[in-house]
Amino acid sequence: MDKLLVIKAGGKLLEDAPRWKSLLQELSELSHPFILVHGGGNRASQVTEALGGTPKMIDGRRITTDLDLEVAVMVYAGWMNKRLVAHLQACGRTAIGLSGADGNSILSEKRPVAEHDFGWVGDVKEVNASFFSQLLGSGFTPVCCAITHDGNGQLLNTNADTIAARVAMAMTADFEVSLTYLFEKPGVLADDKDDASVIPVLNRAMYAQGKGSGQFHSGMLPKLQTAFEALDGGVVEVRISHPDHWKQGGTVIKQ
Amino acid sequence: MDKLLVIKAGGKLLEDAPRWKSLLQELSELSHPFILVHGGGNRASQVTEALGGTPKMIDGRRITTDLDLEVAVMVYAGWMNKRLVAHLQACGRTAIGLSGADGNSILSEKRPVAEHDFGWVGDVKEVNASFFSQLLGSGFTPVCCAITHDGNGQLLNTNADTIAARVAMAMTADFEVSLTYLFEKPGVLADDKDDASVIPVLNRAMYAQGKGSGQFHSGMLPKLQTAFEALDGGVVEVRISHPDHWKQGGTVIKQ
Repeated sequence: MDKLLVIKAGGKLLEDAPRWKSLLQELSELSHPFILVHGGGNRASQVTEALGGTPKMIDGRRITTDLDLEVAVMVYAGWMNKRLVAHLQACGRTAIGLSGADGNSILSEKRPVAEHDFGWVGDVKEVNASFFSQLLGSGFTPVCCAITHDGNGQLLNTNADTIAARVAMAMTADFEVSLTYLFEKPGVLADDKDDASVIPVLNRAMYAQGKGSGQFHSGMLPKLQTAFEALDGGVVEVRISHPDHWKQGGTVIKQ
Repeated sequence: MDKLLVIKAGGKLLEDAPRWKSLLQELSELSHPFILVHGGGNRASQVTEALGGTPKMIDGRRITTDLDLEVAVMVYAGWMNKRLVAHLQACGRTAIGLSGADGNSILSEKRPVAEHDFGWVGDVKEVNASFFSQLLGSGFTPVCCAITHDGNGQLLNTNADTIAARVAMAMTADFEVSLTYLFEKPGVLADDKDDASVIPVLNRAMYAQGKGSGQFHSGMLPKLQTAFEALDGGVVEVRISHPDHWKQGGTVIKQ
């Protein structure tokens, strides 16, 4: 089977145009296809604030209000997505920017209201693998933002790590898929205050132990959880790394 | 040849969600394909103002500053485009939202600096007809916003009327193309203070006369100019009408 890389870029990387442009140039030189999944950096917070919005939280978790959704769609599906697409074109890749609504590429459902209503947040229900295969087969490079839809006209804010994992899993029927998460740190750290403590290979037993001991916490827990789900779903390799050494460095997640 | 409708929606229509939703429902019931081209309504001005921008004008014409471009991409390619796409999905059409960068669908060039520099404004250079044919042939409904790119990574703000006309002209090789411009008025008016004075059929001689006498002025002049260019380019019918009677009403432009 042909190789396919699903690569997720988020956070500070997207706030640093020279850095993401250099990443796109390197990605464009790959001999196999890739799918880029991205968030939006901190511009969304600035725009929301300028429009008079204030973050709404329940139990430390962010609620997606009407305004938050509008700004997320503006910044992720608009400004960030189109700049990435335009730059990939300049690098010689025919890119197509997608929200989950485009081509019905990613269908989600509004997170059910249990104890709390988290607002316009969507949990991924289905990835349209045949649509992605059709695009890849025609030589296009899909660029997916963290916005999905529910099939009834409602856009939904969705976790970009989850989108990347679900897209990667969906493509395993047609491709040998690798998944790479790029973030600020050089990899998964044994000691999160020490950037030199990168764990080169992390397996499920190490994850269970580190989760129990509190070594892994906060945002790293769902990221690792998603990484193992991707492996369970047939993805051949998951890497968590820094944009400066995304090809070889960082942490490889193994079963 | 199969029929294709290129329909441009702009202005106040896009500020009225129930109205554009009902238009999309009607469009979705067409037995032939269509391409939707849209602007963004007045949300862009509100967002620009909230972000501290002030309109910059030269000789009464708007300059597209860095912030203006960012907001145009956010509102047109983001919030407006993705809502239209999501709603078309709900109406049973598999829509794909596009800026000119996506699939290299519309290549433009920054308007050359002569007497003035109008900023990040693009003039259409080339429409990628084979890409649109490929999408239409696969059953997709393209939804184009008024943002293009220059092929070197630069996004550009582009007139939506021009995009609609150029897309319509480019598709005449494969389709029998009609072009419809929707706007606030019931059609081209003989007396722009009298909504009952719709001119049902307007030909080039009437246009030349009305232009000379000042009967047609302001924004109507470039719209009519573009309409005649579309006819010259092989489009079989151009209609300028109101969203409430877009199928039959308004003004039909003839050679």
